[in-house]
Amino acid sequence: MDEVREECGVFGVWREPGAECATDIYHGLLSLQHRGQESAGIAVCDTAGERGNMSLHKDMGLVSEVFDEDALGTLNGNIGVGHVRYSTTGDSTVRNAQPIAFQYMKGTLALVHNGNIVNAGAVKHDLLKEGSVFHATSDSEVIATLIAKIRARTGSIEEAVREAVPLLNGGYAIIIMSPRKIIAVRDPLGLKPLCIGQLDDGYVISSESCALSAVGARFMRDIAPGEIVTVSRHGLGSDTGSCTDTARHAHCIFEYIYFARLDSVMDGVGIYESRHRGGRALAAAHPADADIVTGVPESGLTAAEGYASRLGLPFVRVFHKNSYIGRTFIKPTDSERRSAVSMKLGVIPGTVTGKRVVLIDDSIVRGTTISNLITMSKFRIKE
Amino acid sequence: MDEVREECGVFGVWREPGAECATDIYHGLLSLQHRGQESAGIAVCDTAGERGNMSLHKDMGLVSEVFDEDALGTLNGNIGVGHVRYSTTGDSTVRNAQPIAFQYMKGTLALVHNGNIVNAGAVKHDLLKEGSVFHATSDSEVIATLIAKIRARTGSIEEAVREAVPLLNGGYAIIIMSPRKIIAVRDPLGLKPLCIGQLDDGYVISSESCALSAVGARFMRDIAPGEIVTVSRHGLGSDTGSCTDTARHAHCIFEYIYFARLDSVMDGVGIYESRHRGGRALAAAHPADADIVTGVPESGLTAAEGYASRLGLPFVRVFHKNSYIGRTFIKPTDSERRSAVSMKLGVIPGTVTGKRVVLIDDSIVRGTTISNLITMSKFRIKE
Amino acid sequence: MDEVREECGVFGVWREPGAECATDIYHGLLSLQHRGQESAGIAVCDTAGERGNMSLHKDMGLVSEVFDEDALGTLNGNIGVGHVRYSTTGDSTVRNAQPIAFQYMKGTLALVHNGNIVNAGAVKHDLLKEGSVFHATSDSEVIATLIAKIRARTGSIEEAVREAVPLLNGGYAIIIMSPRKIIAVRDPLGLKPLCIGQLDDGYVISSESCALSAVGARFMRDIAPGEIVTVSRHGLGSDTGSCTDTARHAHCIFEYIYFARLDSVMDGVGIYESRHRGGRALAAAHPADADIVTGVPESGLTAAEGYASRLGLPFVRVFHKNSYIGRTFIKPTDSERRSAVSMKLGVIPGTVTGKRVVLIDDSIVRGTTISNLITMSKFRIKE
Amino acid sequence: MDEVREECGVFGVWREPGAECATDIYHGLLSLQHRGQESAGIAVCDTAGERGNMSLHKDMGLVSEVFDEDALGTLNGNIGVGHVRYSTTGDSTVRNAQPIAFQYMKGTLALVHNGNIVNAGAVKHDLLKEGSVFHATSDSEVIATLIAKIRARTGSIEEAVREAVPLLNGGYAIIIMSPRKIIAVRDPLGLKPLCIGQLDDGYVISSESCALSAVGARFMRDIAPGEIVTVSRHGLGSDTGSCTDTARHAHCIFEYIYFARLDSVMDGVGIYESRHRGGRALAAAHPADADIVTGVPESGLTAAEGYASRLGLPFVRVFHKNSYIGRTFIKPTDSERRSAVSMKLGVIPGTVTGKRVVLIDDSIVRGTTISNLITMSKFRIKE
Repeated sequence: MDEVREECGVFGVWREPGAECATDIYHGLLSLQHRGQESAGIAVCDTAGERGNMSLHKDMGLVSEVFDEDALGTLNGNIGVGHVRYSTTGDSTVRNAQPIAFQYMKGTLALVHNGNIVNAGAVKHDLLKEGSVFHATSDSEVIATLIAKIRARTGSIEEAVREAVPLLNGGYAIIIMSPRKIIAVRDPLGLKPLCIGQLDDGYVISSESCALSAVGARFMRDIAPGEIVTVSRHGLGSDTGSCTDTARHAHCIFEYIYFARLDSVMDGVGIYESRHRGGRALAAAHPADADIVTGVPESGLTAAEGYASRLGLPFVRVFHKNSYIGRTFIKPTDSERRSAVSMKLGVIPGTVTGKRVVLIDDSIVRGTTISNLITMSKFRIKE
Repeated sequence: MDEVREECGVFGVWREPGAECATDIYHGLLSLQHRGQESAGIAVCDTAGERGNMSLHKDMGLVSEVFDEDALGTLNGNIGVGHVRYSTTGDSTVRNAQPIAFQYMKGTLALVHNGNIVNAGAVKHDLLKEGSVFHATSDSEVIATLIAKIRARTGSIEEAVREAVPLLNGGYAIIIMSPRKIIAVRDPLGLKPLCIGQLDDGYVISSESCALSAVGARFMRDIAPGEIVTVSRHGLGSDTGSCTDTARHAHCIFEYIYFARLDSVMDGVGIYESRHRGGRALAAAHPADADIVTGVPESGLTAAEGYASRLGLPFVRVFHKNSYIGRTFIKPTDSERRSAVSMKLGVIPGTVTGKRVVLIDDSIVRGTTISNLITMSKFRIKE
Repeated sequence: MDEVREECGVFGVWREPGAECATDIYHGLLSLQHRGQESAGIAVCDTAGERGNMSLHKDMGLVSEVFDEDALGTLNGNIGVGHVRYSTTGDSTVRNAQPIAFQYMKGTLALVHNGNIVNAGAVKHDLLKEGSVFHATSDSEVIATLIAKIRARTGSIEEAVREAVPLLNGGYAIIIMSPRKIIAVRDPLGLKPLCIGQLDDGYVISSESCALSAVGARFMRDIAPGEIVTVSRHGLGSDTGSCTDTARHAHCIFEYIYFARLDSVMDGVGIYESRHRGGRALAAAHPADADIVTGVPESGLTAAEGYASRLGLPFVRVFHKNSYIGRTFIKPTDSERRSAVSMKLGVIPGTVTGKRVVLIDDSIVRGTTISNLITMSKFRIKE
Repeated sequence: MDEVREECGVFGVWREPGAECATDIYHGLLSLQHRGQESAGIAVCDTAGERGNMSLHKDMGLVSEVFDEDALGTLNGNIGVGHVRYSTTGDSTVRNAQPIAFQYMKGTLALVHNGNIVNAGAVKHDLLKEGSVFHATSDSEVIATLIAKIRARTGSIEEAVREAVPLLNGGYAIIIMSPRKIIAVRDPLGLKPLCIGQLDDGYVISSESCALSAVGARFMRDIAPGEIVTVSRHGLGSDTGSCTDTARHAHCIFEYIYFARLDSVMDGVGIYESRHRGGRALAAAHPADADIVTGVPESGLTAAEGYASRLGLPFVRVFHKNSYIGRTFIKPTDSERRSAVSMKLGVIPGTVTGKRVVLIDDSIVRGTTISNLITMSKFRIKE
């Protein structure tokens, strides 16, 4: 649970035939970009077209690097799914980029997935023994292959999903596109977030609510733990009977502290408010006798504001974060005298001189040791 | 049978553990480049390593565009297969580039294929009904999936290939790499060419003999129609009993007239000699009263030399072929006064003035109509 | 003066022979990236090498896109200059990327420039009449060509710069690299910022002080208006006699409000402090009866904090800024229902409901109309 | 004179206002591609537009790599010049790609150049002393800068060219585009080829006649040694008075033996005929007692045909040349057993077994030593 690199973002759209949804997904993925910067992809279908008319584009990189107007122009259809990835299982290669897409018995199937399947190895082993083959190394391909395999002997893709859910252990949010439908499912414990938004002519499924306003959708509700939602020309359908574990409900605390975007609301709790409250709770439990309170951008700022407000201390921004330092940043060598941190965070002169400072970063909120509270292990403040 | 865009080139290498074979395959594919310029790919394994240690690199483009020293440097292993593609079935996209490679029950399997499977649709349909999925649209993936599926219930990959051959109708030359072996198979009628060469420390399988000298291999023999050849640490094995249709043997005439390289020998017949003989036969059947004989570069030249030699007429090169005009050539519009042909073929001044000329191109050798012989529909000669 | 797209960043290094400076410049430019995201470039010389051994690399894009380890590895030398550009004069093409570099009478000369030369057209016209030629369309090439031309009849590059300064009207900060020296000059009114930092084995010249700590340099002082600073093996030299207009000193107010980085200090004034003070002054002049105060990220935040502190109102962060939306962002069409602003700024739910809000953005601080203060023309707040 | 890498191709077009010439230049350069494969470029002007409306596109690579439909679509104008480069002087970088283009006193000037200026260093030195600057390292920029400099004090660009010619020693063919005119000049000895073709609505200037038919132009005549040809709205003008050295006329023998295309005619002599005649002359001087005669593709083939015809011996094609092995070919290492030659040239089986063979390559025609004639140092023939 110490590895916090485990998130992805999923997004799905169902609009009336004749509409185009690729730009919606593009904007949705841009709003979920904080959940994964390794690869991005979109698959769309035209529900009025032939079965198997899926268009797919995916590659390594940010959403804005993977898609330009030409790429979006090749993605024609009224339903679709999209994905941004931060590798969890599987190598960091384009083979493992999502959507996973293939031809199965009923046409083309595309799947996007956020989460971890604990027993993926065992499920895969069983499938291999029956003659299945795998082109990539991700959990997501295992899920997709399992569902396609079950579909070969059941009456519908929803039924295949319903049979697959009990076989998959872990936390997950999955959106599947079959030639005519969008199916979304959330793990029975509700570990991974997934919500529904309404469009004038359809529906949107998203990892976070912050992506809804980006496409002009109104927030409807969170998908319930274990719920299977289907969107088709018959409208929005829901199957909650079989899979939900009503006795238990879990939250991934990292979503609230670290992953999710400040302007999202998950299962009724605002991310901003939850971080602010965390800071206030920390202040109540561990009040510091200090002159100012500050936070490490970005995720530590809100908790610091909460900490300061609880104790009536001034919150002061001490760091300027260089937003241009990204993945390709070439780090200084040891023989050079400054650290990578000093490239990313500049100290605003005059803000801390002669002052007793409380510095909050997200690891402090996680509260691993109280000693982190005042003495800052990771960041030295100097002018 | 009018569509002559149907070839690919396949190449396989088995060398002793510790040797590297990627550069061999690279040079082999360069020598087979005339068989397909759309995509190129190489997959290699280290037989001394773990099962599943396959490295793969493939992309759209010429061999020299797809591979540079960096790409070759990532391909470490002593056995491997390579492919150059001219699309036959399947779209012209990187998804359909070969080698086809995936994880199956016994590790990784890579397959390269030249040919057409007439009943690929029916075979694929049966596999889909049993729950198989397909990531691309080529015949080659159907063959690979079929063999992997059979392997799940048989004792060896060779056995799976032997079971698969009677299920596949058409002309084909296939090379398969399993974690420890190279298996090559030629269709029972021998429509597609495939031959074996010997290295100091192993064996080479190639579509054409011209690629053997490029890697320093000595020509051993053609693979027989229906023969399954296996190369492993136990040496070269052959299984000819079950599959060969001894009563019938066919040749693909286009290999001799058009596809194959002038310096190759197929099933005992030299390509140069067969084209020269074709020209002589044409001259015997349809002698022309002319001053000079010429041919359209490149495939028409040898037949023209044969035609001229039979009648004792002078062979004269009339055309200069611009070897720099490739796939990306932007053709002149209709409103521009010259044809694309005049960009590719320049007439050498003075060679045809006032002369009666016999012009041979490969379509003439195919002899669709005798009227092509003197009056040239496709190419006008002017100065 | 409404056009605020007019900045660039310049950076220069002089270190002892044997040292390498390209990585220093790379880190310096990363810290100045906010001043220009259109193109980036670095030129270096080895002062112990032959005259004319300059290495140059420049291209369109961010610093992290233009430079990778390979590119930096080709830039060997102990002195150098770098540039990030936001087009002012001249087209947005790589031809106009800086450093401007060419061979002149004394070897190679490279020049980087931030600012506008008001009379560049007249200066260029005079040079053309004397037979000079121009490869690009920027002011910077005019300056460089003028200095090279003067150098052909004067004794040193410093002398040429001193003669050139009175001919150039406008605000500018320029760093020139000749084969053995770095020369920096700031316009006589001091409109454009330029400061000096000290390394253990040399000196750094930078548009802003925030780039000094990124390379481990200690802030020495600002370069005075009209001062010409020379760094060579003889150390740091200064010529302030001839060019400074001592009677007048001007500041570019946009530097303080908008361009410069929060952690920089210019001519003795901290950017953070100046923005905070601006917010306090605004509050004193135009106190608002409101429940909360907020700012538009990023440049409006500090002023909002100041405004809130002056009136004792709570400062609340209302917007989440999507830091992944960059230059290549494909904007929604009009027929789509959301604006580009809603893609970049998400409103944190619950922060403004039922509240009277003061919203500060940098245009408000500029105070064009007081009506902007409470009624927000550019940004609507909704939940 | 042993270095035979010294050629470039130049091409110019003048058509009536309203016509577009970029595609003409593209096809012209494709037909001159054999003269240089390092870089390619096109510059065009609209003579009816403003002075200085030049569009330029150039890059490293083949014509077909540098230009696609998008690139050609940005090149609008009725007059233009193009260039393919094989480096002679100057580094092999895009800085030295041609056309050289810049703004000078009268608007924009573009120049393309094939040849060597023996005294370029001295000319450049004089220009530097007068304050000129240089952005690249090629002779071509020296010529262009010299002409622009002279133009600043003369009445016309033609006059400036006329003054410049006596200052330039060497062999050269130059085409210049000023905003309204195309000016072509050939060195006084006529070392470098240059000819004129006629279009329905204008004129074409080309290094070789083979490029004329590619653009639908009719061959008019060679440009005379020392002649300055001007094409403008006043038609075709010629100035032969001042520069031609009537007493001497030289030919570059390498053009006939090696560089030029088989279907070109230079100064009245066909390249094919000259090579055939060379082979016949070699046979007369050094008749060989052999069974067959063959040549090394491509340049040795025609001489071999001539050699064979003179002695009544059979000419036999022995080698197949792999046309796909280009600049990026990764050569086998020494430890690999085959040579790069065997990758490029395959021996057609059966053609030389037991025969006495005369092998002609272009170096033999050059006749450095007679011993090359039968014993082939560079190519071993084996089967």
